[in-house]
Amino acid sequence: MGIDDFISSDIKRLDEQLIFTAEIDKMTSVARRTLLLDKSRRENDAEHSWHIAVMAMLFSEYAIEKVDIGRSVQMCVVHDLVEIIAGDTFAYDPEGNMGKKEREEKAADILYAKLPEEQGQHLRDLWEEFDAMETADAKYAACMDRIQPFLHNTLTDGFTWVEGNTSRDQVEKRMAIVKEFMPKVYEWMEKNIDSAIEKGWVRP
Amino acid sequence: MGIDDFISSDIKRLDEQLIFTAEIDKMTSVARRTLLLDKSRRENDAEHSWHIAVMAMLFSEYAIEKVDIGRSVQMCVVHDLVEIIAGDTFAYDPEGNMGKKEREEKAADILYAKLPEEQGQHLRDLWEEFDAMETADAKYAACMDRIQPFLHNTLTDGFTWVEGNTSRDQVEKRMAIVKEFMPKVYEWMEKNIDSAIEKGWVRP
Repeated sequence: MGIDDFISSDIKRLDEQLIFTAEIDKMTSVARRTLLLDKSRRENDAEHSWHIAVMAMLFSEYAIEKVDIGRSVQMCVVHDLVEIIAGDTFAYDPEGNMGKKEREEKAADILYAKLPEEQGQHLRDLWEEFDAMETADAKYAACMDRIQPFLHNTLTDGFTWVEGNTSRDQVEKRMAIVKEFMPKVYEWMEKNIDSAIEKGWVRP
Repeated sequence: MGIDDFISSDIKRLDEQLIFTAEIDKMTSVARRTLLLDKSRRENDAEHSWHIAVMAMLFSEYAIEKVDIGRSVQMCVVHDLVEIIAGDTFAYDPEGNMGKKEREEKAADILYAKLPEEQGQHLRDLWEEFDAMETADAKYAACMDRIQPFLHNTLTDGFTWVEGNTSRDQVEKRMAIVKEFMPKVYEWMEKNIDSAIEKGWVRP
């Protein structure tokens, strides 16, 4: 029996929305590189997306522009959905990042076609806004997406930095949006990058 | 070395916010009863909170009152945070639900004291609003919190219903808020409750 045997209301839109809801449960099996803070295993996309959504409710006072928290939280929640199909791309893997955009666009075509058209478009628009990092809400959400794994690295002996043989230059490039949009938070980061180099977690 | 050795910016508020962010990573190890749709394991609170947050972006058209989606999504994201300390309480366990409110209030006292005061109060207010189910935003978020495990049960051979030896009456009571606030979605539920009884997943 397929999913269609269980989800059949008398409303086609509702069926599509329920099937999409079931589909995205797969986010729980998209593994990221980041280690959970108890070091028991790597986190998954669902957990990461949730974590940065909570963060978006906490850090807006450090943003240099006014942020619509409700919109940013929603961006955080959906920003990795395409990875159900495209898979997670490790931030510090230059080769993996080649072709990422095209791979994710194709994934979005497939994923969002499952929803009623205007809803699929709305979620896709939020994801594209997030990815473009041009609006204040997107810059802020992107900062959360950088600060969370940075914090995890700091608290797990530089786990993914070490694994990726990562250089200061790579970390700084990845964190550039935080430097631009949340300079006070970046000051804390900078101190921790220095300390990560001292500890040998990041190459100078 | 404790967490304080790693998180020390020059801003006390920022330290508190970062420590709270690290603290809530524990949501990834609060196990719920619900089975993931691939049946590999039970879901955790972080995954569940994320899942219903996405849902809150999709189903507002069925609500009988206007909903502020951005607010509801935020409620979904924080609604189970106290379970880091209080633990998850199975919806179909009458004994476990005795004393739940008191246990969670105490947990909230401890958890939210870690944040700058007005932020802790803000998150707690959202959680209390969610739990009271009096406002439209809270009713809607509560519906998401009911529909998601219902959908999972429907797609995992009634897993937690069977485990809890659950009766129709218990399921209907748990889903009452959906009947009240999202009657069209409840029509779909009702069909599935009938079918769950036919299959022996729920007692008549």
